[in-house]
Amino acid sequence: MREVVILGIGQTSVDEHWEKSLRELAGEAIFAALNDAQRDSADALFIGNMLSGLLSKQENLGGLISDWIGLPGMEAEKVEAACGSGAAAFRAGLMAVSSGEVDSALVVGVEKMTESLPVETTEALVTAADADYESSQGLSFVAINALVMQRYLHTYGWKHTDFAPFSINAHANAMQNPYARLHEKITEKDYINARMIAAPINLLDASPIGDGSAAALLVPAEAISNNGRRIVRISGSASATDSIAIHSRKDPLWLAAAQKSAEKAYMQAGVTPKDIDFFELHDAFSIMSVLSLEACGFADRGKGPVLGLEGHITIQGKIPITTRGGLKARGHPVGATGMYQIVEAVQQLRGEAGMTQVEGSKIGMCQNIGGSGATIITHILKSV
Amino acid sequence: MREVVILGIGQTSVDEHWEKSLRELAGEAIFAALNDAQRDSADALFIGNMLSGLLSKQENLGGLISDWIGLPGMEAEKVEAACGSGAAAFRAGLMAVSSGEVDSALVVGVEKMTESLPVETTEALVTAADADYESSQGLSFVAINALVMQRYLHTYGWKHTDFAPFSINAHANAMQNPYARLHEKITEKDYINARMIAAPINLLDASPIGDGSAAALLVPAEAISNNGRRIVRISGSASATDSIAIHSRKDPLWLAAAQKSAEKAYMQAGVTPKDIDFFELHDAFSIMSVLSLEACGFADRGKGPVLGLEGHITIQGKIPITTRGGLKARGHPVGATGMYQIVEAVQQLRGEAGMTQVEGSKIGMCQNIGGSGATIITHILKSV
Repeated sequence: MREVVILGIGQTSVDEHWEKSLRELAGEAIFAALNDAQRDSADALFIGNMLSGLLSKQENLGGLISDWIGLPGMEAEKVEAACGSGAAAFRAGLMAVSSGEVDSALVVGVEKMTESLPVETTEALVTAADADYESSQGLSFVAINALVMQRYLHTYGWKHTDFAPFSINAHANAMQNPYARLHEKITEKDYINARMIAAPINLLDASPIGDGSAAALLVPAEAISNNGRRIVRISGSASATDSIAIHSRKDPLWLAAAQKSAEKAYMQAGVTPKDIDFFELHDAFSIMSVLSLEACGFADRGKGPVLGLEGHITIQGKIPITTRGGLKARGHPVGATGMYQIVEAVQQLRGEAGMTQVEGSKIGMCQNIGGSGATIITHILKSV
Repeated sequence: MREVVILGIGQTSVDEHWEKSLRELAGEAIFAALNDAQRDSADALFIGNMLSGLLSKQENLGGLISDWIGLPGMEAEKVEAACGSGAAAFRAGLMAVSSGEVDSALVVGVEKMTESLPVETTEALVTAADADYESSQGLSFVAINALVMQRYLHTYGWKHTDFAPFSINAHANAMQNPYARLHEKITEKDYINARMIAAPINLLDASPIGDGSAAALLVPAEAISNNGRRIVRISGSASATDSIAIHSRKDPLWLAAAQKSAEKAYMQAGVTPKDIDFFELHDAFSIMSVLSLEACGFADRGKGPVLGLEGHITIQGKIPITTRGGLKARGHPVGATGMYQIVEAVQQLRGEAGMTQVEGSKIGMCQNIGGSGATIITHILKSV
């Protein structure tokens, strides 16, 4: 098994890209990644995408995008794991390179969501839940998360306001990220007064959807020389699943697949949570930030909100999270999100994160979640 | 890179499975494969599926199916490459095992198509074509293939009747396959008189859709001892793409991605077309059989029909194809088809193909096609 490094990264802004099609968005991120890597092609292309069939009437993205980027003939396919599709594609690219099957792999996450009617998008997103036992009962994704958050507040005795720091931190960090969907600083007052969506989740607990694409080029470590630039290595990569339906889990407040994939990734990378310099977590809803931090060993069970309230999650804190805005403020183009996390972690590890740079960061963790915790993929990246 | 073998196979019949859901179909094939391999679990699950989002409102199949089979926690994700999804998932499983990332991988192809209205299924299938430039113009998949077949007849001077042997052979072989969708022997007269669908394609040029699932368990060669049973090794595996839209290709009658992936697989396996004992090709339409045989080096350009007319494609012929019925008569549950091909090739290589056994076969080839030739994946399997 060959060690694999990230040689180039690229991204589009997360926005309503009315003038750009799915293939154009993917192409823009891919060309940026190739330029960044100073390469002009790759052996294979792995595409993270969830909704192209449902919202753009387009599957077979491998042929579509490889042709569009001027590399017809290359191996290419789509990997789908709901909102975890980006990281699932990244892991597929990693395995293709580490196995020796290919000598370079492009991975792109791409999603186009804003041309559809909101009801269509909501219906499409809920295909990440159990169609027979959850969505058929009328549960939308925000409703599922609202049930989880309500249960968390009840079980551990927190108030809704205690979650404010997660949203405030994400919005503050996104102010410094030109690719972010939202550039609006928010206060605790804004959070408290935000419009209710599905109690207790209000508008500022929820991440905005968007169109966008993010990409990376992977090559074997042995293929490159470290000519001045900081190389980013993939030191841990693990994927795990849990029951797709919340009601089937032993504990609806515990992300078993987050724990499992994180522990595997820690072991591979030879680190513990204490060694992680920053954590790009999957804050689709603020409750998810808390559950991820607990399952990955950054907080005791039921104590996640403390990290926010005591300021540990900011750029200067003990465990900075969503350093470029996270899903909450960078935006959540679902199948692309996992690749945005990777791109942003590479920016941090290269020292290219500007005003949101985590000083001296050498080890970053990314965690991408499909559904309400059914598929969870963790990557640990190191600069060396 | 570790050598990988197929330890177990399983399948459901291809049929209208009104009483079985997507997860139940997948589970049935997976349990059969595990039983066949005498194992009770695996490290990872790769799912080939095209249409679950569009037709069953269900994505995130990784979490769904791993939970259903009683192995929540395992790594699991869906791979999509239109009708080539099955082989794409198989190749993903191969890379996961060969890279050392996992020590065993289940691959399952699953599709549930017959509960939808025919117009919904047709609309869903055409997401394999270019949404902006093909399907938006009203082209369905049968229409795309009709244009290709018409062009082939025009360019090379064949008559429609010359394609009859491909359908007759597929139906004859399916008579011996209990899992096949169609058990109807057909004659040349039936072929000539079949109802026209989209000229020149008639009902007996086209494969039937269906519900079904096929699965295999992959392990490293080093992990098993050959205790009496014939082991099947994966000796060649390659995936290639072409422009998604037919009109973008240099020659609409040449499957460039079939040639590219086949040549790569031949090289990996150290064989030439002469060494292939049988070929499970992607006969979604009879014209595709001819184009595949030509692109893979079994016939000269424009001469594919000769193989049918001279009887070379039957079980006793020089290059037996669709030995268990092919897409034409076993049926074409799109995202599962590539895995049916693998399962059937293993049956041949183990000598378990009954009345359709290709005597003494040691090297088999499978080719799975996504779209009208946009994604083509070739595998060469050997019994040793």
